[in-house]
Formats: sequence, structure tokens, C-alpha cells
Amino acid sequence: MDINNIQRQLRDFAQERDWEQFHSPKNLATALAIEAAELLEPFQWLKEDESRRLAEKPADYARIREEIADVLIYLLRLADQLDIDLEEAVKEKMRKNAEKYPIALARGNAIKYNRRES
Amino acid sequence: MDINNIQRQLRDFAQERDWEQFHSPKNLATALAIEAAELLEPFQWLKEDESRRLAEKPADYARIREEIADVLIYLLRLADQLDIDLEEAVKEKMRKNAEKYPIALARGNAIKYNRRES
Amino acid sequence: MDINNIQRQLRDFAQERDWEQFHSPKNLATALAIEAAELLEPFQWLKEDESRRLAEKPADYARIREEIADVLIYLLRLADQLDIDLEEAVKEKMRKNAEKYPIALARGNAIKYNRRES
Amino acid sequence: MDINNIQRQLRDFAQERDWEQFHSPKNLATALAIEAAELLEPFQWLKEDESRRLAEKPADYARIREEIADVLIYLLRLADQLDIDLEEAVKEKMRKNAEKYPIALARGNAIKYNRRES
Repeated sequence: MDINNIQRQLRDFAQERDWEQFHSPKNLATALAIEAAELLEPFQWLKEDESRRLAEKPADYARIREEIADVLIYLLRLADQLDIDLEEAVKEKMRKNAEKYPIALARGNAIKYNRRES
Repeated sequence: MDINNIQRQLRDFAQERDWEQFHSPKNLATALAIEAAELLEPFQWLKEDESRRLAEKPADYARIREEIADVLIYLLRLADQLDIDLEEAVKEKMRKNAEKYPIALARGNAIKYNRRES
Repeated sequence: MDINNIQRQLRDFAQERDWEQFHSPKNLATALAIEAAELLEPFQWLKEDESRRLAEKPADYARIREEIADVLIYLLRLADQLDIDLEEAVKEKMRKNAEKYPIALARGNAIKYNRRES
Repeated sequence: MDINNIQRQLRDFAQERDWEQFHSPKNLATALAIEAAELLEPFQWLKEDESRRLAEKPADYARIREEIADVLIYLLRLADQLDIDLEEAVKEKMRKNAEKYPIALARGNAIKYNRRES
């Protein structure tokens, strides 16, 4: 995905409509959290297993696909406004997670999850 | 960004730790919404203008960069589990938005925002 | 619960600390959403059944109790700032729900949930 | 507000519709977070000052009142399922906050907010 190119298109889209005034980082972070909750909405009463077979429900599936796009669009806008390089940020976090959850310890006994549940 | 490559790495990361059992689409959508709220947290008491000058607060800035990475990581995992092509989904949504908010109508009077506020 | 009395105490608490300036309805609604996500956090990797036996995990239980209090505190503040009578609002919504989901239709086939899943 | 009485009505409502099966604490916490985001939605593009004058927009105001009721309803259900006494939990948290943010320190320099912003 050519992130810079999509971010440029989203920036143009906002500028052409004079919407930059609404797109402060605070408002974009708010919009992102709202979209993430809308994405969660179709899952709320599903059993976990049902959520693994979502492709069987085309209407839900299409809606979720669109909500995922909304989340990503606001994330791209926010990163653009804050001058954050998404790819670098993700790679750095992945390195951090690899150190924090070494396979030998995490495997099987799943520290992360046990810690949270204990 | 080579999305497929990062998704593969995240999948390996989960499999090596036997965490796939926790990563149902329902749980990943929940984790995503929680991370989005954590990303919103440092903005909650800021004025909008302060949020536009975030680079002046290195500690907040670094934290927000990391939360943005967390959101993107769960989004990549969720899209991978649901077999959704992120780039296509975003492009399709951008076309839809262009139809929904034509410049001539949206500019200046900002329909989208007026509608929501009215 | 004497809601008016607690709201008065919360108002005094904010005024004594000169925090009213931060407590715009927009910011309080943001804080409420963030607290609701913090309340969701200890549940994110649990199976539904585990969440029904939460009393067995005293640390999680105590944390959830405190997050529930945080959510309610912001809800009381927000309703106070907007002059909304919580009890009346809840009773009105319960009447609306009773009309929207008549027992005869909702029972067994669970319209609400089926609709969302279809 | 007679919390126990309302909780009993909400319990009856769910039982009569055979919805208890969906109302695990995990699902209720999820529904609560989603409703909190829906409550935030009408505020997302507003300036803080506009949010202080919400009574001037009857449609938004009515919607927000209803979303506030939804949040409270799920909070009452969740507390009921977990056997948490809401009034006690709130009072305990208020005592904790009074210790954590003593007036002399919090006033004027607003530690809480400075800490978050620094």
C-alpha cells in the first residue's frame, strides 16, 4: 500500500471541502475511537466462534469491511497530521513486543493473557 | 508499506506463542477499540489547538506514536483473520465518500458537519 | 441512590480544584468513552463463561468495580452539565424498549440479536 | 433513584425475552463501550464551547439524552450481573479521588491535567 499517496489524497479531499478546520488531532483521535466502536458493534452479541465464521454472513461482512476502512482512513489522517511514519512506528512496536513476550516464556502458558486474568 | 509481509510476521508472532486461540475476530475488534481509546486518552483534556502543537510535548508524542502502532497492528491482524484486503477496502470507501460529499455542496457549508450538528 | 446529592458533591469537587474549565460536555463524553474502554479491558481476552465467574478473580473484580465507578462518575457529571434527569431518561428509554421488543416476538427467536446477525 | 428496583425491571426484561444468554459480563461491557462511543458521536466535530450550548440544538440534545440512558442501562445490568453495589463503588472512588487530588495541590496548577499533558 502506498501510504503517502493515500494520505495525500485524503488531505486533498479534506482541503477541497474546507474540512481541515475540523481535523485537529484531538478530533481525529475521537473520530477514530468512534469508528472503532462501530466496527465492534456487529460483533457484540456474537459468540467467538460465530465471529470466526463471519464470511457466512455477507451483510455483516460487508459492513465490517467498510468500518475497517473508516478506521484506517482516520488513522492515516491522524498520522499525517502528526507527521508520524506508520510503517516505522509499527516495526518499532513489533520489535518491542518481541522483547516483551519472548517465545519461550509466552508459549503455552501465555503470560500476557494470564497476567491480565490473574 | 508491504502489508502482506507485516501481516505474515504478525501471524507468525501469534502462532509461535500459541495466541491464535485468543485472536478471534470478536476479540481482535475488542482489542482494537480498547487501543483506540488509549490513543484518545492523552487528548482528552487538551484544547483542540494544543492538540495541533503536540510535537512540543515529546512524552505525549512518543506515547501517541506507540498507541497508533497498536491500533494499526490490531487492524492488520483483524483484516488478516477476515481475509479483507485493506488497500482495496480503503480505496472503495474513498470513492464512496467522494460521491457522498461532492465538493460543490460540501465546501464552505460543510454538509457533513452541519448535518451532524443540526 | 441520591443522585442529586452525589452530583452536587462531584460539582463541588471540580469547582474546588478549578477543573470546571476542563469539564465541557465534549470532554466529559470523551472521558466517559475512555473509561468505558478501560472497563472493557480486563474482559478482552476472557471467554464469555470466564466473565461470568469473575468473582473468582479478586484482583480483576476489584479493578472492574473501580472502573464501573469511574464510568458512573463521568456519566453523573455529564448529565449534570447538560441538565438531564438520569432517572427520567432511563425510565423513558425502558418504555421505548418495551414497545420496540414485545415479548411475544422477541422471546425465543430473539429478533434483536438475529437482526444484528443477519 | 431506586437502583435495585430498576435493576430488577431490567433483569425481568431480559429474562422474559430469554436474553440472559447474551448478557454475559463480557458482552455487557462491550455493549456499554459501544453505547459510550455512540454518546460521543454527536460531540465529535463540535468545538468545546458549542458543546456547552447543546440545549440550543434540540435534536442533538434529545439524541444525547437517549444515549446517556443506554449507557446507564448497560451499566446497571453489568453491575447487577457482577453483584456490585453502584452507590458504594462510587462513594469509595470519590474518597480515593479526594486523597489523590488534594485541593491545595490540584487547584490552579491542576496536577491531574498537567501530568497528563507533560
